[in-house]
This record gives sequence, structure tokens and C-alpha cells, in this order.
Amino acid sequence: MERIITLTTDFGLKDHYSGAMKGVILSINPEVIITDITHEIVPQDVFQAAFILRNFYHYFPQGTIHIVIVDPGVGSRRKPIVVQADNYIFLGPDNGIFTFIYSEFKSVKAFKISNPKYILPKVGSTFDGRDVFAPAAAHLSLGVPADDLGGQVRKPVKLQIKEPVVRGSEIIGEVIYIDSFGNLITNIPAQLIKPKSRVYIGGEVIKGISQFYAEVPKGEFLAIIGSTGFLEISVSHGSALDMVETRLSSTKSKKIKKVKHIPCVIRI
Amino acid sequence: MERIITLTTDFGLKDHYSGAMKGVILSINPEVIITDITHEIVPQDVFQAAFILRNFYHYFPQGTIHIVIVDPGVGSRRKPIVVQADNYIFLGPDNGIFTFIYSEFKSVKAFKISNPKYILPKVGSTFDGRDVFAPAAAHLSLGVPADDLGGQVRKPVKLQIKEPVVRGSEIIGEVIYIDSFGNLITNIPAQLIKPKSRVYIGGEVIKGISQFYAEVPKGEFLAIIGSTGFLEISVSHGSALDMVETRLSSTKSKKIKKVKHIPCVIRI
Amino acid sequence: MERIITLTTDFGLKDHYSGAMKGVILSINPEVIITDITHEIVPQDVFQAAFILRNFYHYFPQGTIHIVIVDPGVGSRRKPIVVQADNYIFLGPDNGIFTFIYSEFKSVKAFKISNPKYILPKVGSTFDGRDVFAPAAAHLSLGVPADDLGGQVRKPVKLQIKEPVVRGSEIIGEVIYIDSFGNLITNIPAQLIKPKSRVYIGGEVIKGISQFYAEVPKGEFLAIIGSTGFLEISVSHGSALDMVETRLSSTKSKKIKKVKHIPCVIRI
Repeated sequence: MERIITLTTDFGLKDHYSGAMKGVILSINPEVIITDITHEIVPQDVFQAAFILRNFYHYFPQGTIHIVIVDPGVGSRRKPIVVQADNYIFLGPDNGIFTFIYSEFKSVKAFKISNPKYILPKVGSTFDGRDVFAPAAAHLSLGVPADDLGGQVRKPVKLQIKEPVVRGSEIIGEVIYIDSFGNLITNIPAQLIKPKSRVYIGGEVIKGISQFYAEVPKGEFLAIIGSTGFLEISVSHGSALDMVETRLSSTKSKKIKKVKHIPCVIRI
Repeated sequence: MERIITLTTDFGLKDHYSGAMKGVILSINPEVIITDITHEIVPQDVFQAAFILRNFYHYFPQGTIHIVIVDPGVGSRRKPIVVQADNYIFLGPDNGIFTFIYSEFKSVKAFKISNPKYILPKVGSTFDGRDVFAPAAAHLSLGVPADDLGGQVRKPVKLQIKEPVVRGSEIIGEVIYIDSFGNLITNIPAQLIKPKSRVYIGGEVIKGISQFYAEVPKGEFLAIIGSTGFLEISVSHGSALDMVETRLSSTKSKKIKKVKHIPCVIRI
Repeated sequence: MERIITLTTDFGLKDHYSGAMKGVILSINPEVIITDITHEIVPQDVFQAAFILRNFYHYFPQGTIHIVIVDPGVGSRRKPIVVQADNYIFLGPDNGIFTFIYSEFKSVKAFKISNPKYILPKVGSTFDGRDVFAPAAAHLSLGVPADDLGGQVRKPVKLQIKEPVVRGSEIIGEVIYIDSFGNLITNIPAQLIKPKSRVYIGGEVIKGISQFYAEVPKGEFLAIIGSTGFLEISVSHGSALDMVETRLSSTKSKKIKKVKHIPCVIRI
């Protein structure tokens, strides 16, 4: 059976890092299909990687092996782990990167990756992607069972995920992710929203939930149920990020960082 | 037979968007080869995607399936279509993105993608790449005929392409694309140009057409027949975009946007 | 046998350039596995490509074909070459891009790529990636011997590589590469360094060599043996590039360029 290994990292695209990982994987299992998801996670932003993983992994076939690496603690006591959830396999540092996986599956098992049989002798201690995760994933793709990699990790690390607060007809959420179009993805799930809801964000009031971007004139704000199942704030043919930033800067607030985590309030 | 699916989008590289598409495709046809062309089309720039497609598709083997998505109208009445031209297959929104294909092939057939058998139930209405184009392409790669996806589209949308104007010994064209090296690609085809032509652009006069970049000293402008078959303006070991921008800014014009579509005049 | 072709270029990610190369390769050998390393080499920076290649090629299986293109002299008298070193094959311009390969292997043979049987008729003279290197690599992957591509090149071009200077207990090196995390990679190899060495860089003094990033508090400098085998200067949970740049700019020096090649002195 042909197996798939996906790669999600904050390694960037200009260096040799993802390339070296691919070489290690193909040296161990030349038959595996390697699929890049992204290497452009904001450096050291573990939540962002966790959220991206949540959004794509289930579209892959059962048996797919997902490597996810954002790892500022590399080389320290934080453990490299493999996580088995039904027929999905995930490899990455034990720093909360699999938080959404832990909450979506009933039965999840995590194991430390420490068996020297399945990892490389190290050059330096900064690149577990190449020396630990890539070879371990390749061996798993050849049929090595996850519990052969090392001892079970009983309490893997979880991130605190901010849930929206519901107060009567008001829902108070926030922007948790901004995509490359400048769409502002909130933590408010579709189920909490009604078609006529009003949305308050960054001094803007949006009346009603749109069905598609082009429903409003070019350059205007809209609220829409996005492809992740959460409410998103967008600008038709434009970038909501840029529009909110411009607004915030004209009120002398600080830029960008303010848009991430900016409150989003719904009146249903 | 192994089939190839290529991906050309404006989805960017930091999000899960292209990754989710790859998962959908591989879940339906694990044998297909997925090839990234680019995900860095300028957001919502349909012409740019159309031009990129023109420049690469014919280098792929017959039978290749090309997905091309720049789709500000996603979810609206604009139709998702599949286009068959000889043995090539193209999927994307019906917004003019296949303009060059329509003019290069004698016989082109377009069909709406609407058969629910070949598309996913939707989460939100903003991501036809994952929910419509990816599954449809994967089914096509398994041998489903294009006309099984939906009814024929008689008059697919075409962009107005700006042709250069020839006035005696003068050709008046413009810059239509700027590549990542800063080369300025014009709409003037090689056939209209003679080796001793003079090129006028942004206040600059270039005498004669070069055979290669290193023909002129570092940092100097040159005109050359580029790999797309059009005249290009370049700077040896540098960026023509940067040089023209600097010049324009010193004359108090506005930047970047001015270089795209800047006139380029040839005297042959 | 399935063969692998890797791609390392300065073509960027927004254009059709790498896509056209992939099409040419797959048209000649549809069975080959194409692996992107990076297309984000700084335009025209031959040393950077040479260094990246050094860092990843040996992780790939024997028989892998590596295409490496940074080629400001494309179309001029510089030769396109194929280099055979043991069971590795490399294709690129003869401009020093294989300098590290020449010094790492005892027996290396280089051949010009000129046999018209294995290259494409040219559109323009600016894109040997598509017209020369891609088809030649694809034919090599089908078993064509390297010396069938053209005559031997006796003295391929080598870059002058700056070695660190050892003066008693002092080693004077410099930053040769800055990765996307902002880690400053020096030319000082691990073997020259002792755990208690002091590191002097950009007005900063770092005491001792760290084992991992999280060993020091967030935002502080550290020195560490990186994954390339060289000494690196990093900032825990941050970017050493940004920190050094800020420091330099407050002293009215020029930015970025100053960090590359900035001296790094070790007292062991």
C-alpha cells in the first residue's frame, strides 16, 4: 500500500530544512508520497500549527502520517512524540501542537520517540525534524508499530483553547487566525450563528451573514461562515486585515498584533 | 496510467488551503501525482493566473489535469467549470481564467461542475477548491468523462487581452507581467521585433535586443526575447522593476502599480 | 527503479518557472519523483545555493539527481554542466555552484550539456532550467550516461570559500548564512569549538556553547552547534538577525548586509 507523509512546519521555504527531511524519508522508504502542507507557520507559533492541522488532516486518507513541527523547545526536555488516533498518525513535539486532535478523538495514544533504531545519529541538537521525526515517520510508513518507537506518554501537553462566551443573545468571541487573503477567522462556530446576526468588530457593524463574498460591493466588510466551520470577517475583493489595520492605525492603536485576538461580538 | 494534477492558485503558502485540496484528491485517487505550480498568484488577479497557465500547461504530458483557481466570485452565480481542449483538461471558475486556452485551441468544450456525485458536501461556501475542484479533478483522473460533471457551458467568460498596436515602424505595447526577478514582460511578441530595434520604457532607451543577460554590464538595462516568447526588459544581475520604480519615484509618480501596464514602445 | 530529481533554484514561487520544469521532466519520465528543495535562493546568489546543496544532498538516496540553478550568466559562454560524484548526479551552470561537491568527493567528473538529443529547442535564451537542465535530468533518470550529454569539462569553476582563521586560542570567522528563523550560521566548524568557548559577535559576548535553544531565557542570545555542523548564533524564541540588526542600526550602521559576513570571534 502506498503511504502518504504530510509536512507542516515553521521551517520557511528558503533553507534546506524541509529538503533534508524529504531526503531522509525517501532514503528509508522510497515508495512513500511526501506532501507539503505548509512550511510557513509563523516561527514558534504552536497554536497556529495546531489550528492548521485541525483544518486539513481529516481530508487525507486513513493511514496518512502527519508530521507537524513548531518546536522552540527542540533538544530540551520536551519530548518528540508520535500520536495514534484511530487510523491517523501524527508526529511532532509534545508542546500542545496536537491539542485539537486530543479533543476530536475518543481514543488517542501518545508514545515518546526514543528508540535509536528509528532515529538518526545527531549533528547538533537543533534539528529533530531531520534527525527524529523524518526517520520515525518513514519507519512508521513501512509498518513499524507506533509503540515500538518508545514508552507511552500518559499526559501529553494541551494548549488552553479560548472558547467564545455566550451571554443571552450575545456571543463574545475573538479572531484566532488570519489567513493569507486577510480573512479574519474567529472562534465562533457556525452553530451559534443565525442568518440575521449582527457582527461587531473593530468599530465596524456588519448586518447579517453573507452566503458568498461577491454578495456585497467591492471593498465592503462582510461576515460569512468560512471553510473551517467558524465565522469569518472578510472584505469583498479585498483584505479585512488591511481594512481593520488601517482603521486601528488611524485611532493610534498598534498594528497587526491588535487584529489577532481582536474581539468579535455577535448579536443574534 | 498514472495521471498528473497540477495546482495553480492564489491561496498562498501559509494556510491549510492547498493541503486540504491535496488530501481530498489523494483520498479519491491515491495514485495521482499532484504537482504544485504556484499558490502565490496575487490574490484575485485573474489575468495573472491566466498568463501563468499559458506559460506552463503545454510542457506537461497530454492527459494532465490543471486546476487553476483565482476566484473572488466563489459561491456566487459564477460557475465552476471543466474545460477540455484536445487531451488537456482544465478546472477553475468561469471568470476568464482560461482565456488563453480558448484562443489557442480550435476545439474547446466547457462543462459546468454540478453533479453532486463528484463534489463534496460543503462546509461554508468559500472554498470550492476543496469542495468542488479537487474532488472533480480526482474523479476525472480516474476516467470520469468531463461531460458527466454537468451541462455544457456555451459561452465561457473571456478576458479582454490587450494587444500591442503597430503604427508603421513603431510598436506600442505595455508591461503585462512582472516576474520574481523583476523582469518586465511585455505583450510584444518576438515576431514583431528585429535585432536592432530600439526600446523605450519609463524614460529609458535601450538600443538593440540582447541575446543573454550578461551581455551588458551589471546594473544596466537590456531588452531580450524572454522564455514566454515576449519581449522582456531586464537589468543584468539586477531587477528592472526596482530600477524603473526608483526612477518613477524620483519623478514623484506612484510606485509599483505604475510599472505594471507601463507603456513600452519599439522602433524597429 | 524509481528515481528522484530535486529542484533548488532562485526562480521564486509566484511564476510558472518551476512548474514548466516539472512539466518537461514528467513529459520525458512520468515515473520520476520530483522533490522541491527551495525556489527561494536569493536571486543570483550562487554561494547560497552552493551552501544549501551541501546541507541536504547527502540525505537523499544514492542515484538521486539534483538540479541546482542560480544562473545570472544564462545564455552566455558559461556552460551548463552535469557533475557525477560517486552515485550522485548534479546539474547546473558551471559558475561555482558545485564548489562544496568538488571538495567533498575524491572523484568528480563534469560534462557539458550540449547534445541536442537531450535538450529542448529554445524559446528565448533565458530559461535553461526548462530548456536544458530539466530535459537532461529527465533523460539521465531514464539511464542515459552523463558522458553522453557532452564533452568533459576539465576545470569546472570553483568559488573561493572563506575559511576561519585560527590564531592561538582565538578563532576568527564570519557569518556565512542566515536562515529563515534569523539564526546566524558561521563558517566555524564544530571541531574547533569547546563547550566553554566565548563567542564575540556584533558587540555581544556569549559565554559557553548551549546544547539547545530553550537553555537560555526567551529573547537572549546563545551560541550552539547547528544542524549543518557549524557554530550558529541564535536567540531563544526569537531572531538573532533582528536583534543584531537593531543593535547595528542604533549605532548608525547599515542594516542586513552588515549581518551577513559580520565577524564572529571565538576564544576557546
